[in-house]
Amino acid sequence: MNPTSSKHLKEKWISTEPIFQGKVINVQVDTVELPDGSQGKREIVKHPGAVAVLAVHEGKLLLVDQYRQAMGRCELEIPAGKLEKGEDPMEAARRELQEETGFRCGSIRLLHSFYTSPGFADEIIHLYAAEDLTAGEVSPDEDEFLEIYQVTLEEAQQYIAEGRIADAKTLLAVYMWQFGAAGGAREC
Amino acid sequence: MNPTSSKHLKEKWISTEPIFQGKVINVQVDTVELPDGSQGKREIVKHPGAVAVLAVHEGKLLLVDQYRQAMGRCELEIPAGKLEKGEDPMEAARRELQEETGFRCGSIRLLHSFYTSPGFADEIIHLYAAEDLTAGEVSPDEDEFLEIYQVTLEEAQQYIAEGRIADAKTLLAVYMWQFGAAGGAREC
Repeated sequence: MNPTSSKHLKEKWISTEPIFQGKVINVQVDTVELPDGSQGKREIVKHPGAVAVLAVHEGKLLLVDQYRQAMGRCELEIPAGKLEKGEDPMEAARRELQEETGFRCGSIRLLHSFYTSPGFADEIIHLYAAEDLTAGEVSPDEDEFLEIYQVTLEEAQQYIAEGRIADAKTLLAVYMWQFGAAGGAREC
Repeated sequence: MNPTSSKHLKEKWISTEPIFQGKVINVQVDTVELPDGSQGKREIVKHPGAVAVLAVHEGKLLLVDQYRQAMGRCELEIPAGKLEKGEDPMEAARRELQEETGFRCGSIRLLHSFYTSPGFADEIIHLYAAEDLTAGEVSPDEDEFLEIYQVTLEEAQQYIAEGRIADAKTLLAVYMWQFGAAGGAREC
């Protein structure tokens, strides 16, 4: 089965109603023509995109603990953050790693770019593997309060089981580390 | 390093400003007290939660091709859908699998529950592995236009490389299938 063309599934954009212009997200409702000719509404969150970093130092994964108001609790995640306007994703990944953990990396490479919630959001996360890490000073954003952890694979798996690691990008990063799918990242 | 308590990172909720009540999402801006005593704003998308299904039939992964207005194109994803009000996630997973692919499953089990975008959304996806599959009739929602694909692991990897598979839940499902992390799912 070769999905060479999906043209018959396409929705045709008709109009956009702006709903909200925020600091992080914008929200809009699009009216579209569905493949059967009828009209539908699509609620869409526009997001600037983000980067996340799988970074392993001396056999331990770098995680940051932070409060997530949307979840109503703290969560352990790999270092990550929004893209600034016009910023190159790879530079953003280096920047977020340094700001949140203090570590600088000698090399960095893209593992995957993926959409987090294609049903309602255009957020895309560029996931990088950072290697050749050197410790330094953290410099988080002014409204960011973080704590850094360095955990073994077994600890990371335990945190997944306990729900302390509970987001898609971090789960994916731990699987990529566990199964060597991040290439040399596990050997750092 | 044992993150036993993250209380010092907690943000204290002060108030909520409702912004938008949609069919799929609600949007609000919360005012919070940050750990340093200052105030901050958090833009939050409220979502009912969703289910997704890793289903392998005769060695091939079930995928659905559908147009995603937020992405502006079609994408291949594992079967998935929103939770209906008060619905049990496992029943929802069985329902979505049947509605979108026609397949019914003899057994189903939870692999992971994860947040897609903890920085701005409370959406949680419950990812299940469905086994003992039996083909049947599809019955998609009235505004859903889908095409079903059954792909080998190699094809799935090719679609990831091409960006035709490009969302977090499907990427995670393919890794779990590839590395046997879904238990017996690969042998179905």
